[in-house]
Amino acid sequence: MSLTVQEVMDVLPLASGPEGSTVDGLITGNMKQKVQGVAVSFVASHETIEKAAQLGANLFITHEGVFYEHHGSRAEEQEINDPVILRKKEQIKSHQMILYRYHDGPHQAVPDIITHGLLQALDWDTYQHSHLKYACLVTLPEPLSVQQIVQHLKDRLDLPYVRFAGDSEQKCCEIALTSGYRGGGNIALPLFTEQRIDLLIAGEGPEWETPEYVQDAVSQGSPQSQILIGHAASEEPGMKAVAQQIRDHFPDLPVYFIPASPVIKVL
Amino acid sequence: MSLTVQEVMDVLPLASGPEGSTVDGLITGNMKQKVQGVAVSFVASHETIEKAAQLGANLFITHEGVFYEHHGSRAEEQEINDPVILRKKEQIKSHQMILYRYHDGPHQAVPDIITHGLLQALDWDTYQHSHLKYACLVTLPEPLSVQQIVQHLKDRLDLPYVRFAGDSEQKCCEIALTSGYRGGGNIALPLFTEQRIDLLIAGEGPEWETPEYVQDAVSQGSPQSQILIGHAASEEPGMKAVAQQIRDHFPDLPVYFIPASPVIKVL
Repeated sequence: MSLTVQEVMDVLPLASGPEGSTVDGLITGNMKQKVQGVAVSFVASHETIEKAAQLGANLFITHEGVFYEHHGSRAEEQEINDPVILRKKEQIKSHQMILYRYHDGPHQAVPDIITHGLLQALDWDTYQHSHLKYACLVTLPEPLSVQQIVQHLKDRLDLPYVRFAGDSEQKCCEIALTSGYRGGGNIALPLFTEQRIDLLIAGEGPEWETPEYVQDAVSQGSPQSQILIGHAASEEPGMKAVAQQIRDHFPDLPVYFIPASPVIKVL
Repeated sequence: MSLTVQEVMDVLPLASGPEGSTVDGLITGNMKQKVQGVAVSFVASHETIEKAAQLGANLFITHEGVFYEHHGSRAEEQEINDPVILRKKEQIKSHQMILYRYHDGPHQAVPDIITHGLLQALDWDTYQHSHLKYACLVTLPEPLSVQQIVQHLKDRLDLPYVRFAGDSEQKCCEIALTSGYRGGGNIALPLFTEQRIDLLIAGEGPEWETPEYVQDAVSQGSPQSQILIGHAASEEPGMKAVAQQIRDHFPDLPVYFIPASPVIKVL
């Protein structure tokens, strides 16, 4: 079988909207190149690119940016003189890796592939009752404490730690799950007030918005909580689902999901 | 002594710039009110407001927003129907607390009062060699490992944990200190490339920018590191310095720095 990048990407829901409105697309290579193998990962780091090359993949589908920014074109600037970026470009070139950023496509899909992947990784599919634009809502069959939910998250997602704000003893039934950088007040507060959730599980978010909100709720005697599992941890299951989708379409094509080692540690 | 809010605030460097360009200013009360006592804190939470009231302070100077957002006026919206916000407004009203947001003023001062406060809390004043707009640069007299620096940060700032990315064994001499939400790539990368720092110490920042950058540097064999001490931890020493500045001007006025309990815990 000899597939082009275009043929592989065509089986995935791609970002829509006016020209220039998406961060998705090729970073290196072109759409007509032949694909020997596909690597899918949360981020194209030095480590994950190296693993992809060792496995013989030449198309790397990355959820987040390659050069440490969401928008912009840091690596294209003529005057760039950053040794980390220069060495990374050298690495990509030496492996002739075709890099494709795939961020908005999966988030715009209905349901959001990334958030839905997280839901499935937690085995909470059957508890889901609504899928909003930025979150999916879950009603647990019986209340669990934040502490118990933290343990479930750690077990299912293989997390060394989570961060949390609120009351770890709080019993929760109504939970919103969001992925990535969606833990901020603009997304969280309407979930607490309009959707009447007890707990928001998010990737990351600004520290003094939702954490201060739930802490105030606790101080007022009406506990609410937020668990931050980390940006990567919240989006890796969704990217694993993307890899599976490609595999289902092309059973003969080598497709690898490459997990990243945890980058942020607690000391 | 009978001072007005205006007279107290006049001793501090206030935000400059065109009308509407600053988040600083009164949230409740007016500038002509008499001040019985001053409370200064990183954030006007339910807990810190309660402490301020117990101490008899009626002017509360808060670095961050009262209603969980940096810009905007969530609490002023007519249709607001958020029980946490409504109860907080009730609390503020019942204590007749005058709230003043003091964020841009101290950051715009030269040197930045908040970052300088952090520098002093670490006892690193004498090691500082430059004060840039968003960071101060320090050269340690002898190299310390990231692990040793983490211990110093924990001891001096009384931190239960820090987050870090990079190489904990890395020996560091050249360090940039930033406060608040300044850990992102736009601020960090020029510090690594132009200022040739080994380590960036910041409050918080997006997870897949600087942490991925330093991790790539480690993978490439040229270790760099970032320590995230938390937004509140990075700015509390500066607000403590603000309290001291008011105290120095008005020795007879009761002035209290109110530390906030850590809101984000690690489980």
